[in-house]
Amino acid sequence: MKLADLASALGLELHGDAQYEVQRLAPIATASSSELTFVVNARYKDQLKSSRAGAIIVPASLAEHAPGNYLVSTNPYASYAKASWLLNPEEKPTMGVHGSAAVAPSAQISPSAAIGPYCVIGERVQIGDGAILGAHCVLGADVRIGARTQLFARVSIYHDCVIGDEGRVQSGAVIGAEGFGFAFDQTWQPIHQTGRVVIGNKVHVGANTTIDRGAIDDTVIADGVILDNQIQIAHNVRIGENTAIAGCVGIAGSTSIGANCQIGGACNIVGHLTIVDGVVLNATSYVSQSIDRPGRYSSGMPLQTSGDWKRSFVILSKLNDLLKRVRQLERTDK
Amino acid sequence: MKLADLASALGLELHGDAQYEVQRLAPIATASSSELTFVVNARYKDQLKSSRAGAIIVPASLAEHAPGNYLVSTNPYASYAKASWLLNPEEKPTMGVHGSAAVAPSAQISPSAAIGPYCVIGERVQIGDGAILGAHCVLGADVRIGARTQLFARVSIYHDCVIGDEGRVQSGAVIGAEGFGFAFDQTWQPIHQTGRVVIGNKVHVGANTTIDRGAIDDTVIADGVILDNQIQIAHNVRIGENTAIAGCVGIAGSTSIGANCQIGGACNIVGHLTIVDGVVLNATSYVSQSIDRPGRYSSGMPLQTSGDWKRSFVILSKLNDLLKRVRQLERTDK
Amino acid sequence: MKLADLASALGLELHGDAQYEVQRLAPIATASSSELTFVVNARYKDQLKSSRAGAIIVPASLAEHAPGNYLVSTNPYASYAKASWLLNPEEKPTMGVHGSAAVAPSAQISPSAAIGPYCVIGERVQIGDGAILGAHCVLGADVRIGARTQLFARVSIYHDCVIGDEGRVQSGAVIGAEGFGFAFDQTWQPIHQTGRVVIGNKVHVGANTTIDRGAIDDTVIADGVILDNQIQIAHNVRIGENTAIAGCVGIAGSTSIGANCQIGGACNIVGHLTIVDGVVLNATSYVSQSIDRPGRYSSGMPLQTSGDWKRSFVILSKLNDLLKRVRQLERTDK
Repeated sequence: MKLADLASALGLELHGDAQYEVQRLAPIATASSSELTFVVNARYKDQLKSSRAGAIIVPASLAEHAPGNYLVSTNPYASYAKASWLLNPEEKPTMGVHGSAAVAPSAQISPSAAIGPYCVIGERVQIGDGAILGAHCVLGADVRIGARTQLFARVSIYHDCVIGDEGRVQSGAVIGAEGFGFAFDQTWQPIHQTGRVVIGNKVHVGANTTIDRGAIDDTVIADGVILDNQIQIAHNVRIGENTAIAGCVGIAGSTSIGANCQIGGACNIVGHLTIVDGVVLNATSYVSQSIDRPGRYSSGMPLQTSGDWKRSFVILSKLNDLLKRVRQLERTDK
Repeated sequence: MKLADLASALGLELHGDAQYEVQRLAPIATASSSELTFVVNARYKDQLKSSRAGAIIVPASLAEHAPGNYLVSTNPYASYAKASWLLNPEEKPTMGVHGSAAVAPSAQISPSAAIGPYCVIGERVQIGDGAILGAHCVLGADVRIGARTQLFARVSIYHDCVIGDEGRVQSGAVIGAEGFGFAFDQTWQPIHQTGRVVIGNKVHVGANTTIDRGAIDDTVIADGVILDNQIQIAHNVRIGENTAIAGCVGIAGSTSIGANCQIGGACNIVGHLTIVDGVVLNATSYVSQSIDRPGRYSSGMPLQTSGDWKRSFVILSKLNDLLKRVRQLERTDK
Repeated sequence: MKLADLASALGLELHGDAQYEVQRLAPIATASSSELTFVVNARYKDQLKSSRAGAIIVPASLAEHAPGNYLVSTNPYASYAKASWLLNPEEKPTMGVHGSAAVAPSAQISPSAAIGPYCVIGERVQIGDGAILGAHCVLGADVRIGARTQLFARVSIYHDCVIGDEGRVQSGAVIGAEGFGFAFDQTWQPIHQTGRVVIGNKVHVGANTTIDRGAIDDTVIADGVILDNQIQIAHNVRIGENTAIAGCVGIAGSTSIGANCQIGGACNIVGHLTIVDGVVLNATSYVSQSIDRPGRYSSGMPLQTSGDWKRSFVILSKLNDLLKRVRQLERTDK
């Protein structure tokens, strides 16, 4: 792709050789003369100066340090994101329903959608324009999939659930399984989970992530939410717009998470809590109380050699004793 | 559904208008005059008094505060669980084997069972009366599924494994995969996992939960156990009757958990331990030693702002130093 | 199997009755006169002496204590691993492609491979000699599967990914899903993940484990790595030879783990770290910094009764106060 064409597609100002041919993207450290790279801030100034990249996307503040061809962007990382699709266009599958798919007669599938082999599509399902279902997807009755949403192979969506436009759901995700609601009466009696999962537009769902349907009301994932792999979202959870959640996070039932939050990997959040907009949780945080102020929070434990850790483990097991000893000392001290 | 019919189906005493027509279930806070709700204990007394619900399931102790139509139950939550199915009956799939399923000739499938599209059923599999398999289930040779057990779409059950009656297994669950047993001899040599997974009656298995087969003996899940999503149960684990396990829990090999335990979300239990009956673990507990007394246990870390947490992190990294300083102070004090 | 034949197949020295017929394997504690067992070290000397097993694999150092028939091995556990396959040979599926599989015309499948029902095989896929694909596997375009590698039912492998020889991938595993890479520009903009997952020889991948494709470079799993169930490996992670990782571990993007490491269950490792060869992590360790020395590390919290834990929780929430009080005491003390 010619640098001029790329600049025009990205809406960026070009400096240098407009005819330069971009072959590929590469990280700044390894980019060669046939490759495009990017820098996001002044931390990379030295790498920028010595880079051998054929072209570089830079912020205006670093433009003077760019050694050769460069494009100036107010958000170089976002420009790189767009360039990644322009330089590596996705192969689109053939439109239409694969001959082996089992489609209920009342399903309404846009003629511009592509339905892969062995998909099973329930009654009254609606699938929007340009939507793509990989092989082996299973959609229960009354499911709705928006325009240009892509399900990769082996995605399950239970009856009545809704996904908006331009979503992307990776393999193995399960949307709308029965929430974990039981009453005890000699044995555990399941409560019929009659709510849905309602997912907005531009939502990404990672591989093997599970989102349970609501008990009575719906489980709701707002527009622009991005979910990594192996996340568990229990019934009646609500997640606000543009919140990003990293892998292996667990969120228990009826908890509400605000907009523009960032939840680090392997965090666990107990049920029936409210977390306001703009909360950032470091990896492995354990949230057992509501959070009513935006900001960054953590609770992860430090790693130690096992020798040191064994001593810490004993001290932590009787932390109250340590506190009492300090109190005793304070008393004696007076 | 008429309130009189509901009361009779639930075996509850009716007060008020027997002809009242219940449309739906709703939580006490939002229930309207066409909806049924429930209260479990005195904590909800005020909400009960001011409720606009058309009918309410109450314990006898709160009957005097019920404003209109009500049903008296010794276990209102369990009555609600039953009502959830009566008011929202499940659509039963058509009996019989879908034309696209690949069924081995020696498999024995009850005529009242329903086998979905693209299921693959191995040799000598037995499937009981009224059992339901969603689309894309794969059952290895010699698997046995009890009566009225339901597998949702995309459940894998490896050869020889057994599930009892009235079970419910959500999408993506994998039962009977090879346990993680290896001997090191220049490289890791796998040990053939020849045990089974044996699951009792009325067991629920959540979405994307995995239960590995035993190495020599079986992995055993007793009657009435309920397992949420994304739980990992390693080879030769044993779980006792009516134990409930929340999402994202990991249980390592050969650990035995008693009956009537409640394991909170994201707990991790190391291998070769014994946990007695009646143990309750709070969310994110880490169990590295056997538990020989019933009761409630925890080990989760408190959440802090990242500023406070950084200080805590440093102190926790040298907790032994803190202990030594306290000891030194105690010595000087004498 | 005759003991003489077993000894010969395992390459071990036989003492006792060469004609003895081994029926089964069993643990030392329960092995009967028709069963073979093994002991690995002197800790089991008493059990060895009183064992009723029909034959025992022992190290040379314990040979004098073996009560009856025995085989002498330099690595009894590895000998047991081999014996587990000899005494329980796997049923091999029929060679060839099942009639219901959807295979792209340009795919190259060895005639000695076995492809199960409803597999979907993309363009230009290569499948080696003796490879086995269970039912419902989905392989994207240009995937390569080495000789004698076995995928169990319902494995997804995205386009371009590579698995070497003699691998074993359990049900529900997803290899090559899109890494979690986004740039924020009003909403989250996905970055096209154009790298692959490249997996070496003799690699085991557990049930429902996910390994994401690289952003630009590849995600790399070296020869001999063993991965348990429900592990999440993010984009551009690299794992060195013969490293073993237990269930429920999460590894964030671009982290590099050395060879011969052992990562315990439910460990979480943040992104962009380097962990050297020979590191052992106890279960639930949280790694937030690179590890530059081999050895054993931990960070798990001790379990307490919930009463004790509530006190600890409060102390941990203000650990800095405790430190300040100790400092104050030290000042007063001088």
